[in-house]
Amino acid sequence: MRRVAEKRCVYPGSFDPVTNGHVDIIERAAALFDEVTVAILHNPAKTGRFPVEKRMEMLKKACAHLPNVRFDHFGGLLVDYMRRSDCRVVVRGLRSTADFESESTMAQLNRALAPEVETLFLPASPLHSVVSSSAVREIALFGGDFSPFVPACIVQDVQNAFDPKP
Amino acid sequence: MRRVAEKRCVYPGSFDPVTNGHVDIIERAAALFDEVTVAILHNPAKTGRFPVEKRMEMLKKACAHLPNVRFDHFGGLLVDYMRRSDCRVVVRGLRSTADFESESTMAQLNRALAPEVETLFLPASPLHSVVSSSAVREIALFGGDFSPFVPACIVQDVQNAFDPKP
Amino acid sequence: MRRVAEKRCVYPGSFDPVTNGHVDIIERAAALFDEVTVAILHNPAKTGRFPVEKRMEMLKKACAHLPNVRFDHFGGLLVDYMRRSDCRVVVRGLRSTADFESESTMAQLNRALAPEVETLFLPASPLHSVVSSSAVREIALFGGDFSPFVPACIVQDVQNAFDPKP
Amino acid sequence: MRRVAEKRCVYPGSFDPVTNGHVDIIERAAALFDEVTVAILHNPAKTGRFPVEKRMEMLKKACAHLPNVRFDHFGGLLVDYMRRSDCRVVVRGLRSTADFESESTMAQLNRALAPEVETLFLPASPLHSVVSSSAVREIALFGGDFSPFVPACIVQDVQNAFDPKP
Amino acid sequence: MRRVAEKRCVYPGSFDPVTNGHVDIIERAAALFDEVTVAILHNPAKTGRFPVEKRMEMLKKACAHLPNVRFDHFGGLLVDYMRRSDCRVVVRGLRSTADFESESTMAQLNRALAPEVETLFLPASPLHSVVSSSAVREIALFGGDFSPFVPACIVQDVQNAFDPKP
Amino acid sequence: MRRVAEKRCVYPGSFDPVTNGHVDIIERAAALFDEVTVAILHNPAKTGRFPVEKRMEMLKKACAHLPNVRFDHFGGLLVDYMRRSDCRVVVRGLRSTADFESESTMAQLNRALAPEVETLFLPASPLHSVVSSSAVREIALFGGDFSPFVPACIVQDVQNAFDPKP
Repeated sequence: MRRVAEKRCVYPGSFDPVTNGHVDIIERAAALFDEVTVAILHNPAKTGRFPVEKRMEMLKKACAHLPNVRFDHFGGLLVDYMRRSDCRVVVRGLRSTADFESESTMAQLNRALAPEVETLFLPASPLHSVVSSSAVREIALFGGDFSPFVPACIVQDVQNAFDPKP
Repeated sequence: MRRVAEKRCVYPGSFDPVTNGHVDIIERAAALFDEVTVAILHNPAKTGRFPVEKRMEMLKKACAHLPNVRFDHFGGLLVDYMRRSDCRVVVRGLRSTADFESESTMAQLNRALAPEVETLFLPASPLHSVVSSSAVREIALFGGDFSPFVPACIVQDVQNAFDPKP
Repeated sequence: MRRVAEKRCVYPGSFDPVTNGHVDIIERAAALFDEVTVAILHNPAKTGRFPVEKRMEMLKKACAHLPNVRFDHFGGLLVDYMRRSDCRVVVRGLRSTADFESESTMAQLNRALAPEVETLFLPASPLHSVVSSSAVREIALFGGDFSPFVPACIVQDVQNAFDPKP
Repeated sequence: MRRVAEKRCVYPGSFDPVTNGHVDIIERAAALFDEVTVAILHNPAKTGRFPVEKRMEMLKKACAHLPNVRFDHFGGLLVDYMRRSDCRVVVRGLRSTADFESESTMAQLNRALAPEVETLFLPASPLHSVVSSSAVREIALFGGDFSPFVPACIVQDVQNAFDPKP
Repeated sequence: MRRVAEKRCVYPGSFDPVTNGHVDIIERAAALFDEVTVAILHNPAKTGRFPVEKRMEMLKKACAHLPNVRFDHFGGLLVDYMRRSDCRVVVRGLRSTADFESESTMAQLNRALAPEVETLFLPASPLHSVVSSSAVREIALFGGDFSPFVPACIVQDVQNAFDPKP
Repeated sequence: MRRVAEKRCVYPGSFDPVTNGHVDIIERAAALFDEVTVAILHNPAKTGRFPVEKRMEMLKKACAHLPNVRFDHFGGLLVDYMRRSDCRVVVRGLRSTADFESESTMAQLNRALAPEVETLFLPASPLHSVVSSSAVREIALFGGDFSPFVPACIVQDVQNAFDPKP
């Protein structure tokens, strides 16, 4: 058995766009590991609302205060990305029992595919437990005030994406 | 913000007695951290089936193959124990949505009491998702075969505790 | 703090079509409040099976025995509609833990957007706990007998929408 | 059918002791109804940690800013108390799916016993979703800092109950 | 592999006392199997409210219309009882996700102990989904009307057990 | 009431493609009933990944060791298929509380449509509790090793469907 403590973790997600809930998990992971890689999953079959480059730009702004966080993107299976990255720890947040059900199934599947990869779950902070990227998009689409749910530094980026073009 | 990766974690529980599910979590934690402390909670108001000393003896036998695991016991609040131990990471396994509900509430309460203490959840391996100390005790009480659920090296210890005295 | 008891509530939904479960909630809300507004959400991005006008016509027939119920429709965010209507109480029924999970998240988001708006949940009556508009549409699509799930006065309306055109 | 809007509600519970989560529900109910009765259930078979008189004293202090809230206590079935009080609306908070499961079962039973009595559920505010009287008692028992979870004006009362007698 | 269709099943429970929910499951099981054995679990460590003999008497009255139902009682592990009875099918009702969680864990444990024993779950009828023996006992204890929840023929038996002795 | 024990059951599903979890349920059902019909639902509105003929071919290979299993396909409502087949027992597996929620709702709807049709639930074996056809398709799409999740005899069939055409 390996005895070297894991120093790095990957926090995968769509981040379409990054929310305060994501930043909370990233900050907490950054206090636990020497290096956190925030990895944007891009699904060729499902175009997100924001291009991957824009999502990464927003993530970088939102995490500028966290020196030990780096950013990446990947397609395909998470376990393949983990192996390419030579990293064995996935971090995910859990907001609700629905999250737990889908995330624990995913974690078990990933362990079946790559037994050395562990998924560690952090319970979402209560203040962020109702925030989701899809809620932010929905509120922005209808002109509501989504600013309580995303980092202040990306509010304008999100706004621009939903504003009617002149 | 602290930038030192956490090297140590505490896995608290009653371990009354240790099960294969516990050992699975301990092994996985031992592969993630430099040092894992398995900490037996002794509740003065609720006598367990086995004395704390016996629980620790069984834990030590069951984890003899894990050099970076140490054992301890504590009373009172987990957050006080964490601070006394100068450790910031609690590890817990999740077998079911019922586990998730009670464990995430506990984790949030602990964060409210000690914001620097994080609880990391590991999803129980499917094979161990139905095992519990209370099930082992119930099966043993009625003379059933509990041996699939506990480490082979403690089967006799458990048996002795439930055998009628001559 | 305001001390005037709330006299009006809004019961929002798709009502595509209205079911006996909806009517049960409307009747119970109508016994609790001076005025209940049943508000059809029309989502420009998701065409329903029935046009909004038809949904309202069916709702009016199904609630003809309830003098203190009025009908409306809206697009955009519920909280904006609530403010335009100068109403602070949303009523929603809960059939299952899945309903609870999604509805409580929605209610918390709405409180974050408009702190004065409260969502009150009524537990669905057991008899109606498995009924949904989507089940009615599915059963009707395949020529099954959906009549136990919708008010008698709209059975023919639903039937007509699914009958093959001559 | 009755057409008079309900002006009064009952918020029943053990309040052993009152928490910030309780006060949040009481404040929100007091903004929705002309009069809220906070009714302490005393169960002869289960002595609480605090005597009913002390629980009421703490509730009154915690709700001193709410002029339309009154206090009472009762034994036996809630539906009998509702009928004696000539009140038809029960208010309860929901913190989790576990809460939802037990509370909706209770509400359905009460409707079977007294069809005119409705239970309205308010989703707990995220900040208060992990607080419970039993957690407060547990933390206080072990000398932890429970003050974030209860109204400031009752902290000393709770402390006194758990301090070792000289 | 065995190819003989199972003709008999066991429906185990406490039946303290039998409810309409139990009778519904028994009737449905009796339509599926040639023979249903209703088996009362008596737990030496947990005295029920009714003696086992009285529980069986009430069950027999409640199922007098079902010729292919027989009655028994047992202590110890269910799997041992199944083997003594040479029966491989356990039937249980599911009322809620909480039921599902505890019952599926129990079923998996029993399969680990006796792989040939299967547990078949029937979803409780919506009308009976909130009924439980413990609710009946609680309502009876406080003099409420529990008669909607139990078979008419045992109402007096239950009443007698809770009436104050003269 | 009918007193003839049910000898036949239907196990409906999409089987797109068959997984080890499906085969486990089929084997267990085949040990409980004289005849099991595995019935592929084909939904005209939702094309599967594999044509119905291919799904049936794979099912037949995967169940070649089970002499009392036959195969069929159907469109429309399950209850209509059950009546055409003169069969009263539906068998379904339950992997999670999410499964339980959707499956028990479906079972109740089916009982409302056809009261003589019962749905029996088997708890999924822990080893198969995270396997699903959609996970197999996702893993295969990205070139991962899905072979632990499907019968060995169909691995090549699945592979072929996802291999890039030359």
